[in-house]
Amino acid sequence: MSAAVETAAFEGWVREQLAQVEQALDAWVPADAPAGLGAAMRYGVLDGGKRLRPLLVRAAAEAVNGHCDAAMRAAVAVELIHAYSLVHDDMPCMDDDVLRRGKPTVHVQFGEATAMLAGDAMQALAFEVLTPEGEAGLPPALQARLVALLARASGHAGMAGGQAIDLAATGKPLTEAELRQMHRLKTGALLQASVLMGAATGPCGAGAWSALSDFGAALGLAFQIVDDILDVTQASDKLGKTAGKDMDANKPTYVTVLGLDEARRQAHALHASAVDALARSGLADTHGLRQLADMVVHRDC
Amino acid sequence: MSAAVETAAFEGWVREQLAQVEQALDAWVPADAPAGLGAAMRYGVLDGGKRLRPLLVRAAAEAVNGHCDAAMRAAVAVELIHAYSLVHDDMPCMDDDVLRRGKPTVHVQFGEATAMLAGDAMQALAFEVLTPEGEAGLPPALQARLVALLARASGHAGMAGGQAIDLAATGKPLTEAELRQMHRLKTGALLQASVLMGAATGPCGAGAWSALSDFGAALGLAFQIVDDILDVTQASDKLGKTAGKDMDANKPTYVTVLGLDEARRQAHALHASAVDALARSGLADTHGLRQLADMVVHRDC
Repeated sequence: MSAAVETAAFEGWVREQLAQVEQALDAWVPADAPAGLGAAMRYGVLDGGKRLRPLLVRAAAEAVNGHCDAAMRAAVAVELIHAYSLVHDDMPCMDDDVLRRGKPTVHVQFGEATAMLAGDAMQALAFEVLTPEGEAGLPPALQARLVALLARASGHAGMAGGQAIDLAATGKPLTEAELRQMHRLKTGALLQASVLMGAATGPCGAGAWSALSDFGAALGLAFQIVDDILDVTQASDKLGKTAGKDMDANKPTYVTVLGLDEARRQAHALHASAVDALARSGLADTHGLRQLADMVVHRDC
Repeated sequence: MSAAVETAAFEGWVREQLAQVEQALDAWVPADAPAGLGAAMRYGVLDGGKRLRPLLVRAAAEAVNGHCDAAMRAAVAVELIHAYSLVHDDMPCMDDDVLRRGKPTVHVQFGEATAMLAGDAMQALAFEVLTPEGEAGLPPALQARLVALLARASGHAGMAGGQAIDLAATGKPLTEAELRQMHRLKTGALLQASVLMGAATGPCGAGAWSALSDFGAALGLAFQIVDDILDVTQASDKLGKTAGKDMDANKPTYVTVLGLDEARRQAHALHASAVDALARSGLADTHGLRQLADMVVHRDC
């Protein structure tokens, strides 16, 4: 296949995946939850975002020829966790942001109390979606495994832990190692878990698992470095969120710690290492994961 | 056994259970989570509370001769969910409370951002505790079942949904039916789930399951009615939280909707119906559950 044909095929695959994920989110995030809670949850998760995590889940599931319904549930669950973290992160006591995905943030639209509850309920919903019990023909052992991966990536040793480091780091100089540790938890853990949850839906030996784990770690860090680069090189309207925010908030970023050139160099080195890991995995079809790695590093928003 | 001997035996059982639950919480809530997050989580969950939910899990597990490690994990998980809900509920954007279990609330002690993150991480930890994977000899199907019960009781159709109704109800007149629906979700769902999670750890036929479900529902509502009664009849130092708070906040309570006498009558009627449900369950040893129902209705704090 030529590069242009490959790219067109990938774009078609992405469109199809996004349509399916959006449909599943629409079906599973309740419109009828009491007293405006459902509306706030849906506002926080539908019609927005790049859906990188669901795409990683689905691409990894394809690489292992995984269980379709499990992969869709994992994709929705990981996006719910990501979306809840944004809702809470935007609140006045955290980043105090008013713009997200080009729209007013959830607390601006629904009030702080409802935003906090909506985030809490989105987290619970992620674990509901992963445990359909008898209904979906999803093996209980796979349900438990997906919950285990997601809970660990979301909590104190993952995303929430990284956010705590981030909070404590504002205005403080961090070494590159400290910054890496912060992002490894804050964004890396959930991106890596997306890959591994996809991989858990099908047969995946220890070697392939370890390679995909390395792939997810490299891609997660590359994602954050590119995020920091875009924060200083792109305008708010392009990003759909407030640009230059981290810089203004006196938060350490890869650009402030390494400079723009070295940050770019490291993003490319991590991309190469992610691609190597895919080759090492020995899996037949890692095409989608490879294209997602390209997308993460070459995106402009 | 005489009533006095029974009571003494029950008190000994409670002390033993509480010591074990406290030890498990101490072991599983991390001291070393990054940047003060672990300290805030431990502050929010250790050394406080009546631990009613863990006691219900353990008593229900004894009634079905359940899996010991599963029952302990379920007890810890449900308490983590309860504790996180208190941390978030106390925040300025919600109830804005400064006193809980006789201590400053988590956001007063650690700041709002850390309190929100600690609550988020406590929720994730609940699901980690339920999914120890290979380690604990816990059957994966049981892990998935416990997660399913807990996630549904915590989220939009359970605790978080009830809190949203509560938020929307402040200053509004509610009918008794609306008030019951609010509490059925806000506190009832998690209390009922405590009983059912315990029951899930051992063999429990459909009839016994349904009876325990009724027991949990009646006990959950009785608990809330007694809470509302104590809110007007007890002083803050006895309760370990701000008394008269709901009344002052112009929130509808069973006392404002029904009056004190009718609220007391209903609490006793629910107790009788909980006791009936236990008799219907056909389970051999529902002694602990019965004593807990007595405790819920006759407590003075």
